[in-house]
Amino acid sequence: MKIAIMGYGTIGSGVAEVLEVNKDLITERAGEPVEVKYILDLREFPGDPNEDKIVHDYKIIVEDNEVGVVVEAMGGVEPAYTFVKEMLLAGKQVATSNKNLVAEKGAELIAIAREKNINFMFGASVGGGIPIIRPLNKCLTADEIEEITGILNGTTNYMLTRMANEGISFDDVLKDAQAKGYAEADPTADVEGFDPCRKIAILTSLVCGKQVDYTDVYTEGITKISTEDFEYARKMERSIKLLASSKSENGSYSCMVAPFMLDKTHPLCNVNDVFNGVFVHGNMLGDAMFYGSGAGKLPTASAVVADVVDMVKHSHVNIFIEWEPEKVQLIDYRESVNKFFVRTTSPKADVEAVFGQVEYVEDVVAEEIGFVTDAMLESEFADKSEKIVVINRIRLG
Amino acid sequence: MKIAIMGYGTIGSGVAEVLEVNKDLITERAGEPVEVKYILDLREFPGDPNEDKIVHDYKIIVEDNEVGVVVEAMGGVEPAYTFVKEMLLAGKQVATSNKNLVAEKGAELIAIAREKNINFMFGASVGGGIPIIRPLNKCLTADEIEEITGILNGTTNYMLTRMANEGISFDDVLKDAQAKGYAEADPTADVEGFDPCRKIAILTSLVCGKQVDYTDVYTEGITKISTEDFEYARKMERSIKLLASSKSENGSYSCMVAPFMLDKTHPLCNVNDVFNGVFVHGNMLGDAMFYGSGAGKLPTASAVVADVVDMVKHSHVNIFIEWEPEKVQLIDYRESVNKFFVRTTSPKADVEAVFGQVEYVEDVVAEEIGFVTDAMLESEFADKSEKIVVINRIRLG
Repeated sequence: MKIAIMGYGTIGSGVAEVLEVNKDLITERAGEPVEVKYILDLREFPGDPNEDKIVHDYKIIVEDNEVGVVVEAMGGVEPAYTFVKEMLLAGKQVATSNKNLVAEKGAELIAIAREKNINFMFGASVGGGIPIIRPLNKCLTADEIEEITGILNGTTNYMLTRMANEGISFDDVLKDAQAKGYAEADPTADVEGFDPCRKIAILTSLVCGKQVDYTDVYTEGITKISTEDFEYARKMERSIKLLASSKSENGSYSCMVAPFMLDKTHPLCNVNDVFNGVFVHGNMLGDAMFYGSGAGKLPTASAVVADVVDMVKHSHVNIFIEWEPEKVQLIDYRESVNKFFVRTTSPKADVEAVFGQVEYVEDVVAEEIGFVTDAMLESEFADKSEKIVVINRIRLG
Repeated sequence: MKIAIMGYGTIGSGVAEVLEVNKDLITERAGEPVEVKYILDLREFPGDPNEDKIVHDYKIIVEDNEVGVVVEAMGGVEPAYTFVKEMLLAGKQVATSNKNLVAEKGAELIAIAREKNINFMFGASVGGGIPIIRPLNKCLTADEIEEITGILNGTTNYMLTRMANEGISFDDVLKDAQAKGYAEADPTADVEGFDPCRKIAILTSLVCGKQVDYTDVYTEGITKISTEDFEYARKMERSIKLLASSKSENGSYSCMVAPFMLDKTHPLCNVNDVFNGVFVHGNMLGDAMFYGSGAGKLPTASAVVADVVDMVKHSHVNIFIEWEPEKVQLIDYRESVNKFFVRTTSPKADVEAVFGQVEYVEDVVAEEIGFVTDAMLESEFADKSEKIVVINRIRLG
């Protein structure tokens, strides 16, 4: 089986490396050798062992009948979408790690693959190397999935872990994450939560079999989380995690990306550093959790190659994925219910006049108090919090 | 699709319940209704909603061409083996939750299913509802799996958790577990580690694609673990867990079931109560962990029904599982390397004369001391420990 890799960055070169390092076992499991014939990239790679495979025109791949499987590791929606669509229409199976492409065009590309009796697989688009897409599709089929909540972004989890353990400020830890290559020069997609937002939209689409638009998911990032918030968290014996969450309610789904303060008994509380974790609750299964390297060159490439192996073994068998283009109307996040931790400079009398009896967290930061509200509608909290001075507020999980 | 359930105990009745409660979504995912036609059991169930489906002769199922899938939830090797084999030979697909049957006859039954172009699935035989069998088979195919270590027995994990948290003795917690229905009247299979021994043999067989005989796996249970051991564990900030572990070494595998003292950073350290957890290390993926309800009626039944759904969708497609009858020669456990925690009444001078410099754990139990050895061969430890008085010893993880 000859394959092509589109995009020779971190993931693309990782795919070439996994295929090389584990060549023998992959040959055995796929039933035949899996050989890279082309690598599509705009750049040249003089001295690279795969130098001679570099091509600059994707049409070369489209038109080569020897190529049966294509790996897309370019990132972004365009031109990845155009290239992937043409590959599928030409009868080539595609494996991708690109959550932007899958969140936006997943339903359409799945339908084309089904039509052509081939496969479009995206196991690496959520959770890096953690098997979560396939377990959802294939293993939890006897269950109604009532909740999926995940730490789906390794960069922000690394940042929050360091802030928690070392008291470093957001700005300093961001610089450090950029220096280590965990955060990009423009960190917006990570720190504003846009990345986990796309990932929870993908997971929710798979759970309900219909299109969840990521633009409908209420999303808050971690840019407002300060060292003082972590001082409160320490006193409360909680961790602060950026969660992407989806809960089924009254026949639809309530989705949100936001920082949460987690109790130490929560299965995701101890998912630290660049690791990802995905918590799933099924109506029969109960609680389950998947944990592992959510990003990084080799773990993500390992997930892409696992999809490639599966596609080589099922060359002309479409493995059914239910994800129709029909759009799901998510529940307005203002109708969801949460408890809130609030930091305020308002006097207790004012707090209690608005929120009634609350649980205080005191003596943490000078000239302010913290308190925890009862569970209430997001809309109710929004109204009430306008009546006192709010320094910051974080939901409780 | 008509199915039959063999064995109407906890799991078998759970399968009927899952099929009933989630009927609509299972019909949708399987592509057709999945209906129970027969339930094989020696007993009658007057008043049970499935009373009229009870049959006592398995031949009725073998000879009914309408039955395409059979669930085996009888437990034990015989007569389950005879019945399952006849079902497969008659062209009926089989899903089982029976680790005794799979550990002993898995390779043969997989081969028969392949021959008949149908499937023999056993996702519920290890880890209850946790998807671990399929991820190993289908998701981690790009990796060389270098280690699988699991908490694979919910009963003993419940017992150890209560001993750790409440200082209860082994005998008292066993009585409580029996009263709650977590432990059987004869608890040997759980407390002596025979149950996780079969499960790690199954997982190792899947990792290497060959037969691992459970009788070759060195197995220790938890019957020697005392409240004093937990006092030491508390001081050392470790938990004591019954681990089933398999590590690849020099082209073969080193397998062991035994209690280990886990550091609090170990991913399995906080897997408590009746939960199971499976830690996997792949050479590309790095660390991953799967966690969930490892036993119980509905979680296990959920895993069985997920296999049924998959088989209904793939009625005449064998999903390849590599597990050949060729036997793997495991590495002798005496050649594996561990660190040991030891409790002794021997004086420090004697300890140091035998073990050299060690790390002491003192002032926990009167008139004895604890110490931790360097990493050494099991055989070396066995020789050395004969030269001092050993009250108990537990490996470190």
